[in-house]
Amino acid sequence: MKQMVQQTATRISESLNQSRGVELTPLQSALAVAADADVLSLAMGLPDPSLFPVSAIQEAVARVLSFSRSALQYTLPCETLKKKICSLMLDRGVDCSPDCIFLTSGAQQAISLVSTLLLSIGSSIVEEELSYPNFQCLVDSFRPQILRVPTNSTCGIDVDVVEKLLVKGVRPALIYVMATAHNPLGVTLSRDKRRRLALLAREFEVPIVEDDPYGALFYDIEPIPSLCSFDQQWIYYVGSFSKILCPSLRVGWVVAPEECIKPLSIIKEGCDLNISTFSQWIVNDFLDSENIVGHTELLRKVYRGKRDAMNAALEKHMPQNVHWEIPACGIFFWLDLPEHVNASALLSRCVSEEKVAFLPAEAFSRNKRSNGMRLNFSHRSIDQITEGVARIGRVLHR
Amino acid sequence: MKQMVQQTATRISESLNQSRGVELTPLQSALAVAADADVLSLAMGLPDPSLFPVSAIQEAVARVLSFSRSALQYTLPCETLKKKICSLMLDRGVDCSPDCIFLTSGAQQAISLVSTLLLSIGSSIVEEELSYPNFQCLVDSFRPQILRVPTNSTCGIDVDVVEKLLVKGVRPALIYVMATAHNPLGVTLSRDKRRRLALLAREFEVPIVEDDPYGALFYDIEPIPSLCSFDQQWIYYVGSFSKILCPSLRVGWVVAPEECIKPLSIIKEGCDLNISTFSQWIVNDFLDSENIVGHTELLRKVYRGKRDAMNAALEKHMPQNVHWEIPACGIFFWLDLPEHVNASALLSRCVSEEKVAFLPAEAFSRNKRSNGMRLNFSHRSIDQITEGVARIGRVLHR
Repeated sequence: MKQMVQQTATRISESLNQSRGVELTPLQSALAVAADADVLSLAMGLPDPSLFPVSAIQEAVARVLSFSRSALQYTLPCETLKKKICSLMLDRGVDCSPDCIFLTSGAQQAISLVSTLLLSIGSSIVEEELSYPNFQCLVDSFRPQILRVPTNSTCGIDVDVVEKLLVKGVRPALIYVMATAHNPLGVTLSRDKRRRLALLAREFEVPIVEDDPYGALFYDIEPIPSLCSFDQQWIYYVGSFSKILCPSLRVGWVVAPEECIKPLSIIKEGCDLNISTFSQWIVNDFLDSENIVGHTELLRKVYRGKRDAMNAALEKHMPQNVHWEIPACGIFFWLDLPEHVNASALLSRCVSEEKVAFLPAEAFSRNKRSNGMRLNFSHRSIDQITEGVARIGRVLHR
Repeated sequence: MKQMVQQTATRISESLNQSRGVELTPLQSALAVAADADVLSLAMGLPDPSLFPVSAIQEAVARVLSFSRSALQYTLPCETLKKKICSLMLDRGVDCSPDCIFLTSGAQQAISLVSTLLLSIGSSIVEEELSYPNFQCLVDSFRPQILRVPTNSTCGIDVDVVEKLLVKGVRPALIYVMATAHNPLGVTLSRDKRRRLALLAREFEVPIVEDDPYGALFYDIEPIPSLCSFDQQWIYYVGSFSKILCPSLRVGWVVAPEECIKPLSIIKEGCDLNISTFSQWIVNDFLDSENIVGHTELLRKVYRGKRDAMNAALEKHMPQNVHWEIPACGIFFWLDLPEHVNASALLSRCVSEEKVAFLPAEAFSRNKRSNGMRLNFSHRSIDQITEGVARIGRVLHR
């Protein structure tokens, strides 16, 4: 088990990590590159720290600490925060009760706990050919049979193939889907695809885990209702405050059928006993006192500008044979490179020749697809984005 | 798997939960009772909130937020905090490098990650007959063979039995030990037992997980060096700031052989991606600016007074046939009740007749031992402790 997890992780970190002596995990490797002042990294999916509402958080801390010493104690999950999350879910098209909300230490824990709930040793799962590596890593510990489904940055997951599998009689323990702002592909599924996926989940009684950290970050279109809005019995929704407030408070949530909340709580207590009361209360206070609508509008405005700047830079600097779509939501561009280009090898050259980094296709692909790269546009300034893309372009043209 | 976890959890929560309509986990049941103003609960292992260094934490937050916006970002684990933990470990008799420190979201996550590292499906583990229920709960998901070893509140784990098992050829994946301030028994192992356990671990190459959340809370004796101080290759040490600073920052740590740190990081990333930078930095700042030695001295002084008050109340109110030891460390008294007394039934009577709560033996026992109870003395005031024990005494005398 440990070995399998290690293999997935090694695959991801190898390219970023190869020039370093220390042993780091994939995330740590990427964070180390991101923190390296010498390298202009577009690799990590980090939010822009200049948008963190620092003084609002400072004020929330002061109120929370003066309200009650229980802010620092073990406590029950915060009921008022659950209610406020229900309001946020209305924006995602979901009308749910606080009894269906389960608070977690970030979205990753949410995905991990839901996967633990749904998976047994030897279950099968449906996963896209390019998918979020930290999901792959965590499900590997259950040694699942992986049913890989085609996907791309234009239309996303191939629902026809999912349907064929289910019609054939395959019953995966879960289907992992990022319907909005796919990581790494950036694609957002059409309303029609969402409806079809939800119908399939219900018809074949197969749970879908909808990972939706970027649901509030939409730029051109009105937000499409979440997958969960089409079926609340079979879709397990995962949300997070990491991208709309800040990552380090580690507050995320699950929307799940009410009967799942106690089993999830029991699994969570085994994992880390108690959610941070302090963090929950800070988020709860922030949602009270700050205009969260105004804050997410600001995020969308700034990130839209960065997205457009990255697109302009790509148009200027990329060779003709590189293909991309403009993401309507989220924080990533996906670049399809010509078949002969190995993005991991390209990354090594980019780091050494031009001091610029991205994440190569291999990081997201179990079958070692190599000709693609993910570029983040939320973290860096517009000048850095433009400069970073220009550097990658120079290496590609060499 | 889920069913087994559920069974263990149900066993624990049944007695506390039976009068309630809502479905709660064991911890939640106990927290709900603790939060119920009508019930004087001595059940939970909560620290005294009046001892939380609220203004020092408030000041630390201000410094941390003004230092860098990275306080709210995903980051690498805090190296200076690791160094400060190395200094704290010197007090536990361990001289280790920061490269052997792994930061976690509290001690429970530390135990969970180390167990995930060491256990495979179907492994065996050595556990005391009375042990920490959230350890039992988390290892259940690996369906281990449980090798139960006798223990008591006078001497702790029966090392002779452990030795016999190992000599017989049994090779458990891990032995779970609370050498200092056992939960629930309150007992602290002698130096001789520690030495013997560490020698057995080394001789038979069997890892011991040393769970040490109360190591700094010693009252009569000079602290005995941790089990880990006798062998750093085979003892995995788990520490926490929950009881010496506050629980809700969720910062704990593992001291493990250096080669385990990367595998632990990979498992942790699958579980919850990133430790809270904010929490780590607050603890790090607190350790800089506050006299941690002075703070733990204050904790010891106050808790010693509470322990002595509970002992005096027990002497006054308990029937002759109830036995207990005065704990030298930690936050719990363990009461051995006469064989015919079922503590779970007693708890129901105590809650309904006298509005007082404790944790019954069944919560800690896989083989349903019923004639014992755990009383916490850290959480409540001396008046409440005295009153609570008097109430339990009244029910026992009826």
